[in-house]
Amino acid sequence: MRIDCVATLYEAETPLIRGKTAIVIDALRATSVMAAALAAGASCIVPTDTVESARQLAREGDVLAGERHGLPIPGFSLGNSPAEFRRETVWGRRIVMTTTNGTQGIKKAADAAAVLTGSFLNASACARAAWRMQRDIVLICSGTENTFALEDGLCAGCIAHAVRMAACGENVELGDFAAAMENAYTAAAYRLEDDLRRSASGRRLARIGREDDIAYCAAVDLLDVVPVLTGESLLPLGETDGEPELKADPLRRAVF
Amino acid sequence: MRIDCVATLYEAETPLIRGKTAIVIDALRATSVMAAALAAGASCIVPTDTVESARQLAREGDVLAGERHGLPIPGFSLGNSPAEFRRETVWGRRIVMTTTNGTQGIKKAADAAAVLTGSFLNASACARAAWRMQRDIVLICSGTENTFALEDGLCAGCIAHAVRMAACGENVELGDFAAAMENAYTAAAYRLEDDLRRSASGRRLARIGREDDIAYCAAVDLLDVVPVLTGESLLPLGETDGEPELKADPLRRAVF
Repeated sequence: MRIDCVATLYEAETPLIRGKTAIVIDALRATSVMAAALAAGASCIVPTDTVESARQLAREGDVLAGERHGLPIPGFSLGNSPAEFRRETVWGRRIVMTTTNGTQGIKKAADAAAVLTGSFLNASACARAAWRMQRDIVLICSGTENTFALEDGLCAGCIAHAVRMAACGENVELGDFAAAMENAYTAAAYRLEDDLRRSASGRRLARIGREDDIAYCAAVDLLDVVPVLTGESLLPLGETDGEPELKADPLRRAVF
Repeated sequence: MRIDCVATLYEAETPLIRGKTAIVIDALRATSVMAAALAAGASCIVPTDTVESARQLAREGDVLAGERHGLPIPGFSLGNSPAEFRRETVWGRRIVMTTTNGTQGIKKAADAAAVLTGSFLNASACARAAWRMQRDIVLICSGTENTFALEDGLCAGCIAHAVRMAACGENVELGDFAAAMENAYTAAAYRLEDDLRRSASGRRLARIGREDDIAYCAAVDLLDVVPVLTGESLLPLGETDGEPELKADPLRRAVF
């Protein structure tokens, strides 16, 4: 098995993705929110590009969620802070979600054999699921406006490291960028929250008063849910051996 | 002072470079060769794009050096292995040099206020020189065919780390990619040669029988020479306080 990593969505071209297990990462905050929402019992997440399409897709009982440039969207009941996605706000409900670039990564990954979303919150769960699929893996860092974002790179390194742990000594080859990110994560692991605060995204979140989200999003392996793209929606993946199956019963999911 | 890092020559756009101190890195092997050649007493290095222009530029007494796809160029007296650049082959002579992409990085950096070339061999010397210049720094990883190369990223991290050491606690702000590379280097430092062997470039060098070059190029701070672009040539920078001056006398240079 081989693990590659792309630094930004801009670099996520079809030949690098086709036939692989793609893990889309927007650690601050879109893919952290996705993990938190499914862990809190949301029935599924429908990622959309635009605010308009989110409004059009939403049916009665759905939760509209998302952000533009980090800020809540008028008329949407939830923003993009993972702590907002609790049992009382999302249990059993469909989330229609749009973020500045987190949802676009999922569209870019559509040619993959399977599309998961990863964050620090569910890094090991994601890594175990990807290992069980036994395909080459491509870690897709969302970045910010086609620029590398430290939090996504460190999260990619965290997941690459966890895949190598899941492989228990079986050979996992890392591409150059994935190897650099794994090195970076292992150096930063003991002060992850500090590094995220110093990153460009961390400073941006502090400016808009969402500093608490950084601590939440830096909690490695807090959740064991793995969002997987199924049709147009993200559903929680079942923890089974071999090719994973979907959990049908929301009561069986990990709940934060 | 701020340090940024670009992952490939493709990303080295003028707005990111203008007015800064640029450090061009092609650790396996072009910028390692440049350091080795000046340390061994070459009078200067003239980097050129093409084999043809190298042949045209060479005057009597000059040394033609370089590679295409890692291999020696017919009719050139030296290749691209730093160990070839010894006192007996280069002392007092001008080196006309062309490599697959190492020399192109220097052209891309031409809008910078100063252009240095960095490698593991002269990482700290380079960092001290850039710190003394007191401008923002951009580390330009050459990469391979517009793809990130591990050795260049780790070398950028090594130089960024050394600049922070040279700053002795004064504030040095790192951009996200530079911070990731510094983290990656600090994790890889104790097994640098192993990481370089496992990189795509390392495996390529092993295939063409140049494995020994990896060990040589991984020797951090073996040399204290800093190549600086002056007109069309690279000359050794003087070790002075304040704005650096050029050493006029080759006998004063560090000799490997």
